[in-house]
Amino acid sequence: MKELKGAAVFGQSGGPTSVINSSAAGVFLTALASKSITAMYGAANGIKGILDEKLYDIGKEDPEELLYLKNTPSSALGSVRYKLASPEEDETDYKRLLEVFKKYNIRYFFYNGGNDSMDTCNKVSKYMQKAGYECRVMGVPKTIDNDLFGTDHCPGYGSAAKYIATSIMEVYQDARVYDKGSIIVMEIMGRNAGWLTAASALAGIKGAGPDLIYLPELPFDKEQFIEDARRIAKANNGNCMVAASEGIKYADGTYVADSGVRDKFGHAQLGGVAGTLGNILKEAIPEYRVRTIELSLLQRCASHCGSKRDVEEAFNAGKTAVRMALKGMTDYCVGFERVMKDGNYSCKMKLIPLSEIANTEKKVPRSWINKKGNYVTDKFIEYALPLIQGDVKYPREDGLPRFARLKKVTVRKK
Amino acid sequence: MKELKGAAVFGQSGGPTSVINSSAAGVFLTALASKSITAMYGAANGIKGILDEKLYDIGKEDPEELLYLKNTPSSALGSVRYKLASPEEDETDYKRLLEVFKKYNIRYFFYNGGNDSMDTCNKVSKYMQKAGYECRVMGVPKTIDNDLFGTDHCPGYGSAAKYIATSIMEVYQDARVYDKGSIIVMEIMGRNAGWLTAASALAGIKGAGPDLIYLPELPFDKEQFIEDARRIAKANNGNCMVAASEGIKYADGTYVADSGVRDKFGHAQLGGVAGTLGNILKEAIPEYRVRTIELSLLQRCASHCGSKRDVEEAFNAGKTAVRMALKGMTDYCVGFERVMKDGNYSCKMKLIPLSEIANTEKKVPRSWINKKGNYVTDKFIEYALPLIQGDVKYPREDGLPRFARLKKVTVRKK
Repeated sequence: MKELKGAAVFGQSGGPTSVINSSAAGVFLTALASKSITAMYGAANGIKGILDEKLYDIGKEDPEELLYLKNTPSSALGSVRYKLASPEEDETDYKRLLEVFKKYNIRYFFYNGGNDSMDTCNKVSKYMQKAGYECRVMGVPKTIDNDLFGTDHCPGYGSAAKYIATSIMEVYQDARVYDKGSIIVMEIMGRNAGWLTAASALAGIKGAGPDLIYLPELPFDKEQFIEDARRIAKANNGNCMVAASEGIKYADGTYVADSGVRDKFGHAQLGGVAGTLGNILKEAIPEYRVRTIELSLLQRCASHCGSKRDVEEAFNAGKTAVRMALKGMTDYCVGFERVMKDGNYSCKMKLIPLSEIANTEKKVPRSWINKKGNYVTDKFIEYALPLIQGDVKYPREDGLPRFARLKKVTVRKK
Repeated sequence: MKELKGAAVFGQSGGPTSVINSSAAGVFLTALASKSITAMYGAANGIKGILDEKLYDIGKEDPEELLYLKNTPSSALGSVRYKLASPEEDETDYKRLLEVFKKYNIRYFFYNGGNDSMDTCNKVSKYMQKAGYECRVMGVPKTIDNDLFGTDHCPGYGSAAKYIATSIMEVYQDARVYDKGSIIVMEIMGRNAGWLTAASALAGIKGAGPDLIYLPELPFDKEQFIEDARRIAKANNGNCMVAASEGIKYADGTYVADSGVRDKFGHAQLGGVAGTLGNILKEAIPEYRVRTIELSLLQRCASHCGSKRDVEEAFNAGKTAVRMALKGMTDYCVGFERVMKDGNYSCKMKLIPLSEIANTEKKVPRSWINKKGNYVTDKFIEYALPLIQGDVKYPREDGLPRFARLKKVTVRKK
């Protein structure tokens, strides 16, 4: 291995999770301990921060404060939804990135995100190579959606899954207190992949989960839904719990959430899936009480209910990215390999070529969804249960979470 | 004190909380340890369970399982919303209660609930006295709404407040990750009293709370709201966080949540306060992104984020009710008295006459709300902060909460 001396930059991209900052802590602490990395920069709002030359000097942060990042939800550096054009179409951004990299002698580029971000990494790396600029590029995965290709699971998913299952168990208790039951429709994130919604079934193994689960992997059948809900409510004193992905669609491809409701100004109200399914049931089986709950942003930032395993794996993903880059690796994204030994779970870090992970979505396999398409099978439970293990002992102050307080010292523009 | 030998019955009433079962544990374990109480019954669905003679024999439960109740949200025995008529209007229910009490030799009646339930207790007690049937009646307070008269605070409030403040801190992080901010409107429970919504300000002392807080105690001024939100969003890169009680009303008394939206069948859609305020902003200041979040049932059942102090106080309230009844007290509700010594909080149990607590609502004092009516003052913080202290170490199994598993052995009807 040839030693490569230079600065490193780390950016966070896409929707935040409970543990994206844990990966940041892994990157920062490992990089700051390395002699080859001469400076560790945090890019404000991902790739935008590099383009705008808005970089934070992480070396100026108190190392203890960086450890608080492990239990600080969201993106401490700020995130971005910015897709680079193909360099063949428009080279502007790439030229600018090269310019900034040269100016600050950036030789390590770590980028935390989902498949779009891995595409960004890949394009940047290819461009730098073509330009003859030596730079090691490593992706750090993240997404509550758990839809990245080539990795057993994604950092962020375990914590979101744990929060979802826990909240559903609690709501289940709450919903069944009166002598007349109610139908509860829970809306869970997931536009194209149903991993998060499927996690509701984890509450089911404790006897306090949904009766019906709908994932975007299969077309949604409205009539069958009404029939199932009616049957279950009838047999259970009016009780029925439904978990549905925000992205479920009818067979014709239209989103279920497009409710057709208009406000007084004539604007379409995208009531969300919970609201729409709730209205369908209120209309079809008005004899039952219906209540809808949207887990909304809560599910992706509830670090107070994080999976310890997820937090640690996210940290290790960041650490591994830096370590592997220092060893000379480039153009990879860190991935997870599940190792099961005597029924015990462990997670091995692996490297996935960026070109393989970019722009591919991993969905819940058909065989992990039941035949009727309204619940998941034991295979899913077997897969997901290890990911929510371990309880985070998050730091507190005044009875509330104590998040990292970064100084965010901006690097003087060169 | 004259010893009174006989059975005891305990019922849970009204909307559940995270800690109502902790009070049940306090009642059960204290009663089961007493020689005067010959049997401890749990009423299925509150007063309805007594009328229907559906009673669980708590003595048949495993005592360890009863301890799990401390961290099991909702109402383990089932709840009810049933208001007894005045005995002068209709004696039927009272006659029936007396009949059941006599049949099972019930000499202790413990009832857990809010002001309606205390009214029930009071009426039942008066009737028994008039009928010459000796029975000691004690109320155990509960309500996340914190609106009971005569007590410093109510069991259930501290845990809900802690969950609300914690969730808001997390959402605050999440909402500020992009280079362009967003307006977040959070809807919090509270029809008539703003205690829960005010708790959002606890996140504010950590620098991660709402900018605007609206309580039902004051009329809501739409134009002022738009102006404030616009000003704050403008000054903060598009960011603004709003916390609003579900029950806020305009000066003319109409609920803000009555949005005027109609569905395709012409039904009024009560979109909730968050949705309505969100629409108001989208209309008035479309240049900003608006997102709405309803904390819904989650806030009253999130025992995984409970206040240890609240859980213990709720347990003690149940214990005190039984102890005081054994000492010969009747016609009281347990209440809390705050004792501050050298800046340290402690909570003393006290007794409030049922006739005083019944049907009275305690609201957030005007002096605890700022002059403009869009935030709370330090007095509120000083009041609420001690109530969310201490973190619950809730029992877990498979990475998920482990709730009480009661056998619920029904007593054979006599």
